[in-house]
Order: sequence, then structure tokens, then C-alpha cells
Amino acid sequence: MSAPLKVALLGCGVVGSSVARALVDNGDDLAARVGARLELIGIAVRRPDRPRPDVPVDPGLFTSDADTLVRSADVVIEVIGGIDPARELILTAMKHGASVVTANKALLAEDGPTLYAAAAEHGVDLYYEAAVAGAIPIVRPMRESLVGDDVHRVLGIVNGTTNFVLDKMDTTGAGFAETVEQAQALGYAEADPTADVEGFDAAAKAAILASLAFHTRVASDQVHREGITEVSAADVRAAREMDSVVKLLAICELLRDESGTPSGVSVRVHPAMIPRSHPLASVRDAYNAVFVEAAAAGELMFYGPGAGGDPTSSAVLGDVVAVARHRLAGGHGPVESAYADLPVVSMGDAATRYHISLAVADRPGVLAQVAGAFADNGVSIETVRQRVLEDGASRAELVVVTHRAPDAALRATVDALTGLETVDEVVSWMRVEGA
Amino acid sequence: MSAPLKVALLGCGVVGSSVARALVDNGDDLAARVGARLELIGIAVRRPDRPRPDVPVDPGLFTSDADTLVRSADVVIEVIGGIDPARELILTAMKHGASVVTANKALLAEDGPTLYAAAAEHGVDLYYEAAVAGAIPIVRPMRESLVGDDVHRVLGIVNGTTNFVLDKMDTTGAGFAETVEQAQALGYAEADPTADVEGFDAAAKAAILASLAFHTRVASDQVHREGITEVSAADVRAAREMDSVVKLLAICELLRDESGTPSGVSVRVHPAMIPRSHPLASVRDAYNAVFVEAAAAGELMFYGPGAGGDPTSSAVLGDVVAVARHRLAGGHGPVESAYADLPVVSMGDAATRYHISLAVADRPGVLAQVAGAFADNGVSIETVRQRVLEDGASRAELVVVTHRAPDAALRATVDALTGLETVDEVVSWMRVEGA
Repeated sequence: MSAPLKVALLGCGVVGSSVARALVDNGDDLAARVGARLELIGIAVRRPDRPRPDVPVDPGLFTSDADTLVRSADVVIEVIGGIDPARELILTAMKHGASVVTANKALLAEDGPTLYAAAAEHGVDLYYEAAVAGAIPIVRPMRESLVGDDVHRVLGIVNGTTNFVLDKMDTTGAGFAETVEQAQALGYAEADPTADVEGFDAAAKAAILASLAFHTRVASDQVHREGITEVSAADVRAAREMDSVVKLLAICELLRDESGTPSGVSVRVHPAMIPRSHPLASVRDAYNAVFVEAAAAGELMFYGPGAGGDPTSSAVLGDVVAVARHRLAGGHGPVESAYADLPVVSMGDAATRYHISLAVADRPGVLAQVAGAFADNGVSIETVRQRVLEDGASRAELVVVTHRAPDAALRATVDALTGLETVDEVVSWMRVEGA
Repeated sequence: MSAPLKVALLGCGVVGSSVARALVDNGDDLAARVGARLELIGIAVRRPDRPRPDVPVDPGLFTSDADTLVRSADVVIEVIGGIDPARELILTAMKHGASVVTANKALLAEDGPTLYAAAAEHGVDLYYEAAVAGAIPIVRPMRESLVGDDVHRVLGIVNGTTNFVLDKMDTTGAGFAETVEQAQALGYAEADPTADVEGFDAAAKAAILASLAFHTRVASDQVHREGITEVSAADVRAAREMDSVVKLLAICELLRDESGTPSGVSVRVHPAMIPRSHPLASVRDAYNAVFVEAAAAGELMFYGPGAGGDPTSSAVLGDVVAVARHRLAGGHGPVESAYADLPVVSMGDAATRYHISLAVADRPGVLAQVAGAFADNGVSIETVRQRVLEDGASRAELVVVTHRAPDAALRATVDALTGLETVDEVVSWMRVEGA
């Protein structure tokens, strides 16, 4: 057994306290797996004097001086979250020779290249399995298992709160506002749910997944983002009628030119209908799952709990063991791979499919006029279903599902439909994925 | 970019030719991801003169002299399969300083420790993602992602042929023999399907998974193995009546003593009923999936194609990139972790649940006698369902599902039931998992 490795923990919230407990309670097993003991040398918190009965460590380990702490560690675990002071602390840690394990999706998605560059400069590891989809191993499979393959597309349910809300809307028929309140009461949604329901959290994860999948730098502000606040009970019901379900998806797609050469990547977060037969449709409650399509591997799915102290701690500790082993055996893990350097295309250029529900006049010629609006914008229709509305003799509902077309063309089609004299209302439109 | 790394390929069947094609066709991408070109220096085959139009390499690369080839390689890819000559070639390769990537589940499950010891002695990598569940990243997640956690149980559908057969029996109601013939006609089963349908293939994978999950050496001959040849259409129908489905499962379980200390591992392959609501129940056709229960992570599932040239090649190439990076950066990947060294318990000591279907006399006192047989063997009953058989006035069917009990006690109960005067026949019994 080698000399102990010094581990510094930054943050002691739900995840941090679970990590601290595991380092203490499973110390013998972790030592056997690493080949050296992991010695917790300090926990940086804002209020070191606050009693923490659930963290069974010497109270003297708590400190408010994170900057000094990280300078003497071999491995720094950052679970504070947010941009500052996490960024400076991670950079200081690396500068002083520590490998870093972080769960900080926001920082990675905003400024990953700076962190990667520092890791390379100082010859240390930067690991972040916990940043995407909690306990589910997805960063390591993307960085390592699939690195010999070509990933075409990633479809991820990477935010537990929104999946919980959409799943409940599907099973109860209730609306968005009511369901969010229920999620808050049950602890599945924050008092201020903006980061989840507006898709910010999923967008950061999408940026990380796209960067890994396509060997290209993608920052969170390059991710097209639409949340679920506009998803109505009627949308969910419309999906149900299509034998589909509404999910908030993080979508990373490789685009190719006519010769088949990769020409760009589309990275976006938005609600979409997916068929109930798709493996992602059965992801219930607050679970997460990432569906990956690769040239050789085919279709893979990774499923599990996407959040919570213990699941996130599992991912953090797997990384801690990995970087600790590297310190003992020499070498290091994968570094940033951004060689493909593909452009991130705008949402208008992303190829998607639409489900559009229209209230129209029930008389001859309406369908021709509607179909004309699609054709004028170069959008091909896959199916049309017409239903006479029960409450009115001369009104009907048209449900159109399109083939894939640039999102801009589909938006323009919706605008054109709104202006048609025979169309009372574009009742709803939503993108369709996974078909 | 560093100097090229010399890659030797052993075997050029379905997997080998896919690997060779990828090394050629994706050479630029692989070089960018590794930091050096992967130069294919030879392909060892039995008949080097045979035309191979689907492998776009210089025909001069084919050789029958595998032994010489492996001595000059940096990375050796072994996709011959079987014990000999694969074992000697791998050992020779390592002795001469090559890292090895293999898909050879049989060899790893029979003699993994010898290979691990050689890798450690010579300071090279031994990687084998493709040995379990094809393209699905499961070896790396078990060796690395979950290494900071404690795995309780692994339930795997790790043989595509048997899953295809059982899925078809479920959807068509047909019997085993008929369905195997259909699977053979469609290319999902070999002309001699023994290795698959008798569970040998799954047992080798179970041994590998258990070794990784529990840091304990498990060889394939320590795995309790029952195939699917005895699974009847009636069994599948009985499962359906329980809202369950029959799957061939590779099960790896950690046993604990009364104080909670790990006391042994149960590793077994057998058909079992699982509820249709379990994530494994929706694994259709020849797909594979591995369901993992861990202390902190909770329940995870890894899903994808478990076989085939391209999917297996994807897993092989991920490993090739990993070991190639280690050669450039120094260091190496995880080594054997067998420190826990837990005993493998016999099947009789494994805790399982049974579904038992009995034909009995329909008269007072029968249930008391049947229940007595369970009680005498210390087996607790969860549910009993009684149904009068339509074809006879005085005969009934009893379906009993038990709580968990040692398999030996359940076997003894079945024997005792067979001897009861009121029991005409033990119509069927099957283990129940995943509840």
C-alpha cells in the first residue's frame, strides 16, 4: 500500500456530505481499490462552525479557507457548484498539482476549455462523471468506451425535475402549473424551479455531452433552449393520441454534407413527442436516461437516477478512485478532445419534425390550402388526420405530422398557417423525435 | 502527433474484419483521438491466402504466424476466441510488451487471473469491454465508474440468442424447439446452439461481471448454470398470467452475514420470471441489458446490442484507443481487483424465490397439506392462487409464489410436494427475480 493521498472536499451540501460519509465509512474498501488510503484533509464550507451531525468527521476538518486547502491536496473534489469561486479554486488546485473531480455542469459548460487547458498544462486529471445524469455512467462511456466509434446522435432525459413533471402530466392529465406545485411539495422541484423548467440545467448537460460526442467545443450559450413551461395538458393529450409521450430532451446531432462529411453539430434542449415504443418513453418519475446512436455500436441506452446526494456521490467517488490510481500508477486519463472543431449550427438549420394541430373550417378546399402552406415552405407532410369537432357543425381539427425539415422552414410554415383565412387557430405545435 | 503504434489483429471473422475495416476507414479520426496513428502491422488467420474482399487491407498483412506477429506489436487485438491458442498468444504478446484488447469471454472466465498477473508483471494493459454484452459499455463502468460504490446485485440479459428465443416464445406462444428453429433460420442461433441455450456463454459473462462487481475471483465453473431448453410454452404462459416474462438471467449477488458484513457471492445463470414492469422485461429481440443495483448509485441499466461484428468492434476499438493513449501518456488502466476474496456459495445457499404450479385434488384439506410442505422446509409463501380446472370436477390448479428462501429449501419443498398424496403433479416451477 502506497502513502495516503490527500483529498480536499469543497462544499458540504447534500452531495458533499454523502461524499464525506463514503470516504470515512468505506475507507478500507476505497484504500484496497486505489492502492492507498484516501485521507480527507479538509472540507471547505462557508460556515465551518455550523454543527453537521450527519458528517462523521473531525469538526476541525471544516474550514472557510478553501484557497489554502486546495494548495496542499492530491485530489480536490469540487461540489460547490456555480461559476465563482469554483473556477478559481479548481485552477488553483491544478496549479498546485492536484487532480480535480467536479460535479459542476454549469462551469464545465461555460468554461470547460479553460479547465481542460489548465489540466493539460499541469499534467493532472479533470474528471466530471457526476456533472451529467448523476449516478449514470455516461461521461466515461462517451470519453472512453465510444471513442473508437462515431456517435451520430444523443437523446438525453437529463433533468429529473422536468421528467417528473411531464410524467405526472401524462399519467394524471393535469396542467403544468398544478403539477409543478405537486413536484415542489414532494421535493422534486425547487422553490424557484427556473433552472430546471426553463431548460438551463439540461442545456449545460447537452453542451457537455455534445462536446464529448463530437470532439468539438460546445458552450451552454450555444445550445438552443426551450423549457417546458409552455407544455399544456392539451399537448400531452395530443401526444397520447399519437401513442407518444412528451419529454424534455437534450439533443446532440451530427450533421453531414452531401458527401457524408461531418459539417456541423446541432445541440438543443426542447420538449418533444417521442413514441411510447421508444426506450426513452419508459423513463418515469425523476429518472434520467441517455440514448446514444453510434455508427458501429448501434443504439445504446444508459438509465438510472439523475440526481440526489448518494447517486451523485457514487459518480464522484468512481472518479476519485480513477484519478487516485493515476497518481499512483503514473499517467493520466483522457484530455480534451476538440480536434473535429465543427460549427454549432443555429436552430433554424436543425432538421426536426413537427406535430401541428390546427382548428380549421370544415369545408372543401381547406386541406388543399393547408397542404399548400407546407409545400410553399418545402416541408413534406408524413400524415394528416382530420376530425370534425363535436361542438360545431362547420369546424374541424387537422393534425399534421411532418417529415424532417429545417426548423426554420417548419416555423415559417406555422406562421403561414396562422395567416390562412381557413385556419381559425394553430392550436399547438411540438417537435417529434425518436421515430 | 507521436510515432505510429503497431497494432496486430488476431482473427478475421465477423468481428475481426469489422475491426480491420474501422482501423483503415477511420484511421484519421482514430489518430486524432489517440495522438498517434494506429498502424495495422498484420492479421493472423488460419488461411492467409483466402480472398477477403470485405477487408480493405494489403493482402500481404495476412499471416498464419501469429506467434511472430504478436512479438513486434504495441497493441494486440485478440478476436479468435476459445482457450487455445488465444491464451498463449496473449501471454506472449504481453511478455514482449504489448497491451492486449480481447473479446474472449471464455478465456477470461476460465483463466482471467493468469492473464491479469501477466499484465501486471509486464506493466501492460488488459482490456476486454467486448467480452460482455457486445457494444454495451459495462466492463468499464464496473471497473471504473462504480469502483467507489458497493454493488449489491447484477441482473444481466447477456445472451442475445436466448433472449430472442424467449421473447418470441412470449409473443407467439410457441414452444422452445420450434422457436429455436426459427431463430436458426433468421441467423439468431447457431446450427449447434448448445453454448447459448445451455447457458455456457452467459455463465462466462456472469463470472466476469461477478469478479468485477465484487472484487473477487469467480471462474466460469463456479457459476451455477441452467439453460432454457426446459422452458416450455406453459412456463411462458404461466409467467404471462403473473404479468411477468421469462428471461435467461446472469445473476451476481453479494451475500451478507447478520452483521451486514459481506460473506459470499452467488453467481448463477438460469431462467427466471421477472415482472413486466421491471426495466429488463422490455429488453426485446436479441438485445442485451445489464441491470445493476449499488448502495449509493441505486438502480442503473445499460442497454444495447449484445453481439454482431460492428457493435463488438465498437467496444474493441474503444479499448484500443484507451490502451494506446496509455502507451503515449504513460501509466495504465485498472488492474485485477480481487482483494475482497469472497467465497462463491453453492446454488443451494443462494436466496431465491419460486413460482410453483401444482395440479391437485379439489377437496378440503389440500391447501393445508400443501402449505405444510412449505412450512416444513422453512419456506414462507407470498401468494397462493387456486383455480378449478375446467376439464375435471375434482381437480384444481394451485399456483404458489414464495418469499426468498435458500434454493436448497425450495428444491426440497418441490420434492416434498411431488410426494404428497393430494398432489397429482408439480406442473412447473421457476425462479422469480426482480420483484
